[in-house]
Amino acid sequence: MVGLDTRLEYIPDHVIEGCSGASPFEVAANAIFQFNKAIIDAVYEHIPGVKIQIAYYELYGPPGIEAFRLTAQYAHSKGLIVIGDIKRNDIGSTAEAYACAYLGETPLKGISMPAFDLDFITVNPYLGTDGVMPFINACRDYGKGIFVLVKTSNPSSGEFQDLPVGGKRLYNKVAEKVVEWGKELMGTRGYSHVGAVIGATYPGQLEELRGEMPKAYFLIPGYGAQGGSARDIIGGFDEHGLGAVINASRSVICAYRRSPWKERFSPLSFADAALAEVLHMKEDIETVLSDNGIKPW
Amino acid sequence: MVGLDTRLEYIPDHVIEGCSGASPFEVAANAIFQFNKAIIDAVYEHIPGVKIQIAYYELYGPPGIEAFRLTAQYAHSKGLIVIGDIKRNDIGSTAEAYACAYLGETPLKGISMPAFDLDFITVNPYLGTDGVMPFINACRDYGKGIFVLVKTSNPSSGEFQDLPVGGKRLYNKVAEKVVEWGKELMGTRGYSHVGAVIGATYPGQLEELRGEMPKAYFLIPGYGAQGGSARDIIGGFDEHGLGAVINASRSVICAYRRSPWKERFSPLSFADAALAEVLHMKEDIETVLSDNGIKPW
Repeated sequence: MVGLDTRLEYIPDHVIEGCSGASPFEVAANAIFQFNKAIIDAVYEHIPGVKIQIAYYELYGPPGIEAFRLTAQYAHSKGLIVIGDIKRNDIGSTAEAYACAYLGETPLKGISMPAFDLDFITVNPYLGTDGVMPFINACRDYGKGIFVLVKTSNPSSGEFQDLPVGGKRLYNKVAEKVVEWGKELMGTRGYSHVGAVIGATYPGQLEELRGEMPKAYFLIPGYGAQGGSARDIIGGFDEHGLGAVINASRSVICAYRRSPWKERFSPLSFADAALAEVLHMKEDIETVLSDNGIKPW
Repeated sequence: MVGLDTRLEYIPDHVIEGCSGASPFEVAANAIFQFNKAIIDAVYEHIPGVKIQIAYYELYGPPGIEAFRLTAQYAHSKGLIVIGDIKRNDIGSTAEAYACAYLGETPLKGISMPAFDLDFITVNPYLGTDGVMPFINACRDYGKGIFVLVKTSNPSSGEFQDLPVGGKRLYNKVAEKVVEWGKELMGTRGYSHVGAVIGATYPGQLEELRGEMPKAYFLIPGYGAQGGSARDIIGGFDEHGLGAVINASRSVICAYRRSPWKERFSPLSFADAALAEVLHMKEDIETVLSDNGIKPW
């Protein structure tokens, strides 16, 4: 997956100069959508989908959220799966509002319409089952999926997630619940609609959790700019090369400013640089899978 | 505090009928803003601020988010403090984007402007210190505050939050970190800019945590429609009647449809019913404080 964590600072000047708007936020939001469209056009035939980190859209206020919605819609028009990285969480009645907004439909006086219509979202488990069930109900009703944060990619993720709890760690306890939540929502190929987020930066835990959660898709951020390599993510795959969804964000969308691509592409060709990095990433992952005796998909 | 968890279903028909828009989402968003304005106009002289639950605005897509922004702006124009109940959480670089969006300013090619400009937000701690520090840095830079989820008001909050960890519970461990994070950001009257969310539905833990976190403001949801009474929240206050921020949402904004107010107010007078409930709530809290020997503020 390509992570469209698009900030205004990442966008070449020529894209911004071609955008207008009634406020600096609108100009920024329009530039972000144009940039995303160009990236999607360049890479869509080579990836299954995009992950859109909503924080980088909320940063530009309501116009930014509109750019988020349009980006998801455009990705869908190209046949891509859309994961909304939104890490929402709340008590039941409020979680239901989030679930309607992002996975289901919004009731509007007799009719109902989808507000964002994403395929998957990420969910924070700290509130427990009754804060997660509204999302799972929406998955069932609308054929969608969620990834629950289990072991995140950041340096201090262990502070709470690794705390010892009755001979296990907190993340193992969360993993147990993810398995339980996912049991009644099985999809095709032996995987559930309820998956987990496990950072590429913790390869040991990734392998351990693959064993504990054999039916959960893993969304694995941290490949690329955060330091995770293809060798680090191998533990997330099953023997058929399934089960792991690998996401790279900055390493792809900012490829034109990073070695080795910045030496070969100008800012005018930012989308070509993104494609080059996507093809490199695919080859990198396929090689490591192959080296480990897993037949690439 | 009054919680503006405004859903379209709560709004009397006459308000909706007076609203227009290019889509059903825009009509809904406009009706929500008009409803909120009327509630704020009725109650602002009797409350310190409002808590706005963003899920109920995301439900109506980008126009809903604009209604959220306008509601916060209107509350500010009436001198109210605005708490954004957004429960955001992510890895450091992404948490920084959320912090800029909601507490600080968004960089926009040489200039920077606030996107939402809230006074406080709620934050989920599951990712640990490096996911929380960007919010704390924004508090320092812009004179804002956060409330970190410690013990939430929902029925299954104990599933993870109450897990035993080294002789304590997970929520005690989170409380320890909240104290640590808040030490260098002390405000006036002995309280820090880093507070905690503790549900009114767990009065025992509320009292316990007051002892463990003497310098943290507690945001206490769950009074009213969720079942918490004034007697349940008493443990959140210090001996001067400070330290606790009590929020009621549905019991106030839907007062016109609930007993005893629905017998006395028509839907046309929904804002007067909200004021009646606010005055009742204040008296209820002041009585219990007074009965416990705490001199009301």
